[in-house]
Amino acid sequence: MPRPNTNFESKKQELIEIAFELFMKKGYEDTTITDILKAAMISKGAMYHYFDKKEDILDAVINYIIALDEKRYEPILKDTNISAIGKIIKMLKSSDSDVPKEIRVAREQLSKRSISIFDYRSRELSNKRTAEVLAKIIADGVASGELKTAYPKETAQLIISSANNIHENAIENPTPENIKKQVDYFIWVLSTGLGIEQEQIEELKNLVVSQLK
Amino acid sequence: MPRPNTNFESKKQELIEIAFELFMKKGYEDTTITDILKAAMISKGAMYHYFDKKEDILDAVINYIIALDEKRYEPILKDTNISAIGKIIKMLKSSDSDVPKEIRVAREQLSKRSISIFDYRSRELSNKRTAEVLAKIIADGVASGELKTAYPKETAQLIISSANNIHENAIENPTPENIKKQVDYFIWVLSTGLGIEQEQIEELKNLVVSQLK
Repeated sequence: MPRPNTNFESKKQELIEIAFELFMKKGYEDTTITDILKAAMISKGAMYHYFDKKEDILDAVINYIIALDEKRYEPILKDTNISAIGKIIKMLKSSDSDVPKEIRVAREQLSKRSISIFDYRSRELSNKRTAEVLAKIIADGVASGELKTAYPKETAQLIISSANNIHENAIENPTPENIKKQVDYFIWVLSTGLGIEQEQIEELKNLVVSQLK
Repeated sequence: MPRPNTNFESKKQELIEIAFELFMKKGYEDTTITDILKAAMISKGAMYHYFDKKEDILDAVINYIIALDEKRYEPILKDTNISAIGKIIKMLKSSDSDVPKEIRVAREQLSKRSISIFDYRSRELSNKRTAEVLAKIIADGVASGELKTAYPKETAQLIISSANNIHENAIENPTPENIKKQVDYFIWVLSTGLGIEQEQIEELKNLVVSQLK
């Protein structure tokens, strides 16, 4: 394998974008390595300099989409004038509505099948990355004394898991009582996990209610 | 579609077992619908009486494996002489060591690829089912006054999510300090979620430590 250098990275990026286009057109499962080789006009041997197997290309494409999507978190992370709770609220708000349209289209295109490896892997990597961003916000909030936990990373993971769980529960049983229950539980997880009063996240509560409806 | 009847169910079960064998031999991704039709000696039209698409067969096969595996929870659920905490401990103990060998082999065989739909879907359905069993134990523990939560189902889901998270964190960074941290966090989630003192789950703590090692 050649030493990583600018040329290597830019060629790799080119391959990722070519694979991305192909996955968009045909879906991940129906795109073959041969399709990618043809479109990139390289040999199988050359491809192995960059990726060992098709699954590695999948991960690279997903991480590419996540990185594009993640740009919307940058101003939130950099803003020194908002509290940690304010940042968490902005982050959760952002994840619902601010996803750029081309990324939403890409995600739809990429998961042509009802149960798709793309969907699962994408959700997994995306949850992981979101938890990392949230962990940073929580750690900052702990440092400033606003939040209280000895486990910023683990709390962030649990909040993401809980958000996914309550979202699924709300889809499964979308009655007003159940949605209220899910929100109440999520607020409890958040306030208990972050060592804050539930009243401090009243705004977040309303946000979650509106997102689950 | 014919009315569900004994004959329908037994034919469906036969198809599930045939598909299971094929998935074992070739892996899920490399088994085609045609392979299944040939092995079952039925037409594509006949197959549609039972399954709309290949993914439905995957789910049926996974649920079949889960049901086989789940038999080990039956004596725990039925035992009226153990406390809810005792049952949770038994359940967590069981999930590590008591998986029948044929199921372990099947799981390995079914996920031939490094990122396999079988793995993802299997984990998803299995987590869901484990959370249902755990929710029942928690609800019973609440009814008897041993545990305290208004959200048995949601707490069960959160405990399963947390167990998966700490397991992955421990694999990612298997230093003794990190393993201790993950266990401490899990015990905190459990005691806080179930409204009990950490001392009450000292035995569970040792169990989790040994499982993460």
